[in-house]
Amino acid sequence: MSKLVLTIGEILAEIIAENQGDGFLEPIPLTGPYPSGAPAIFIDQAARFGQPAAMIGCVGDDDFGIVNLDRLRRDGVDVSGIAVDPELPTGHAFVRYRPDGSRKFVYNIKHSASGRTRLTEAGRAVLGRADHLHVMGTALFSPSLIETALSAVDTVKTRGGTVSFDPNLRPEMLRLPGVADAVAEFLKSADLFLPSGEELFLFAPGKDEPAAIAELLDGGLAAIVLKRGSQGASYFDRERRIDQPAFRVEEIDPTGAGDCFGATFVSCWLQGLAPELALSYAAASGALAVTRVGPMEGTSTRAELDAFISRADTEKAR
Amino acid sequence: MSKLVLTIGEILAEIIAENQGDGFLEPIPLTGPYPSGAPAIFIDQAARFGQPAAMIGCVGDDDFGIVNLDRLRRDGVDVSGIAVDPELPTGHAFVRYRPDGSRKFVYNIKHSASGRTRLTEAGRAVLGRADHLHVMGTALFSPSLIETALSAVDTVKTRGGTVSFDPNLRPEMLRLPGVADAVAEFLKSADLFLPSGEELFLFAPGKDEPAAIAELLDGGLAAIVLKRGSQGASYFDRERRIDQPAFRVEEIDPTGAGDCFGATFVSCWLQGLAPELALSYAAASGALAVTRVGPMEGTSTRAELDAFISRADTEKAR
Repeated sequence: MSKLVLTIGEILAEIIAENQGDGFLEPIPLTGPYPSGAPAIFIDQAARFGQPAAMIGCVGDDDFGIVNLDRLRRDGVDVSGIAVDPELPTGHAFVRYRPDGSRKFVYNIKHSASGRTRLTEAGRAVLGRADHLHVMGTALFSPSLIETALSAVDTVKTRGGTVSFDPNLRPEMLRLPGVADAVAEFLKSADLFLPSGEELFLFAPGKDEPAAIAELLDGGLAAIVLKRGSQGASYFDRERRIDQPAFRVEEIDPTGAGDCFGATFVSCWLQGLAPELALSYAAASGALAVTRVGPMEGTSTRAELDAFISRADTEKAR
Repeated sequence: MSKLVLTIGEILAEIIAENQGDGFLEPIPLTGPYPSGAPAIFIDQAARFGQPAAMIGCVGDDDFGIVNLDRLRRDGVDVSGIAVDPELPTGHAFVRYRPDGSRKFVYNIKHSASGRTRLTEAGRAVLGRADHLHVMGTALFSPSLIETALSAVDTVKTRGGTVSFDPNLRPEMLRLPGVADAVAEFLKSADLFLPSGEELFLFAPGKDEPAAIAELLDGGLAAIVLKRGSQGASYFDRERRIDQPAFRVEEIDPTGAGDCFGATFVSCWLQGLAPELALSYAAASGALAVTRVGPMEGTSTRAELDAFISRADTEKAR
């Protein structure tokens, strides 16, 4: 039986600067609105991979909300848990890449409709059907959202469901009230932990990689997937370590790659696929994500990932 | 002695769609951020015309706030009364022209830093030096702003200063709590009233133009300037009616034209120029505004207006 994966968090309209540079201090060419928000990208990728998928969130009563709802609906996401706030605008993020690959943002999330994300009646209904909950650190930007996410984790775990956690945290977020404690709490409840790079050491400071992994697995995680960007990824459980190289692609826009990777891995894991296969699908999903401009434009179906992987295998064999 | 003109209200970053269409439902080419907000455009034009000018407002601690502060400062506006809110984002408006010339907006003003516009200590200091206050209807989007503007009107009038009022109201705004009453209040205190088209009849419903004008002048206004867009403008006081045709220009972007017209007229009026000359400068200012993309990009210096008017006269004489 197919498991329903649910996520909670921010939904944004993203506006992308056409040219590299530092900031938004004069009129420049832009493109948007693109549907966005890390949890929204995650859930869109899960649905496109074929996993039953639903989201709890909140958008404004404006075009930017419609852009997101339409896209998620079209891609098969159950949006019944996404509220439309009559007053606050849909969150937005302007993104500009600097020449060094880092990004400059001008954004409004906390004081947008996303800041009003709550467990509404419709949200509770979809939570009541969820087999798995995916929590992302980006969604923890306000104490009320932390509370909502913690209560959802509780509900799912109590019913015997599973939880995955992707810290996806900018370092400054850890200093926000309640965030560090909440991250520890999510980690305690999680079955699957998906850190990127240094995030592995968030709660194992001063340790080396094997020691940090061992400590985290001792804490009760079923598995850890460490994302290393263009360096590939590694899967760890009590018995195994499996390394997955990254697929080589031309990077057009890296936004959303980690979210797509995570969504595809979680979907495979829920479907009981072997970790080797799950890692390969996830890496392909992350690779395809960076080849398209726009955060949610690079999500892929399972058939697209199969085709991409077999093409990559053929090229390697030459 | 040069009189200081002050305005209060919203400051926005504007993002303009490159192509006509109805709304923001898919990624489209955009350009921005442009400094914007009707009162900000007004005060920028007043300063560029050479009038001592100051503004009370509030921006966020972000690039969109910097874009506005830098532009206003560069053009000579005293920005000491503009607060920087540490939390809320600078207001923004996405604008797309429909083929019929009407506009579709996606915006956030009320829940942006502009919604926190208050009489701070710095604001009170600049209000204490103001000889003239210009109030715009767009600035009345929240009860606290109405209160701030009414209190500022009181301060300026008590000290023997003058007030101008430009309703600049979308019809739906009149239904917001307190707006209709506030408009009546501003009209009662105003020396100069600058309605556009149908706004003349806001408080004289069912009357024809001469009757509405007569009633308004009886109410205590020194003068009325009726803006008719591409149909020109008319000046009325107890003795005279003066008509001013519009200058013919190629319309590129009409946003801000009425604000520029108003700022130039008010500046001329404060400088004691004859109404014929004030109308001519104001019409030139509105005409030049529509020839540039961007709401505040079309503001003009007095020298630029002189050159434009003499060019137009030469062409007419041919």
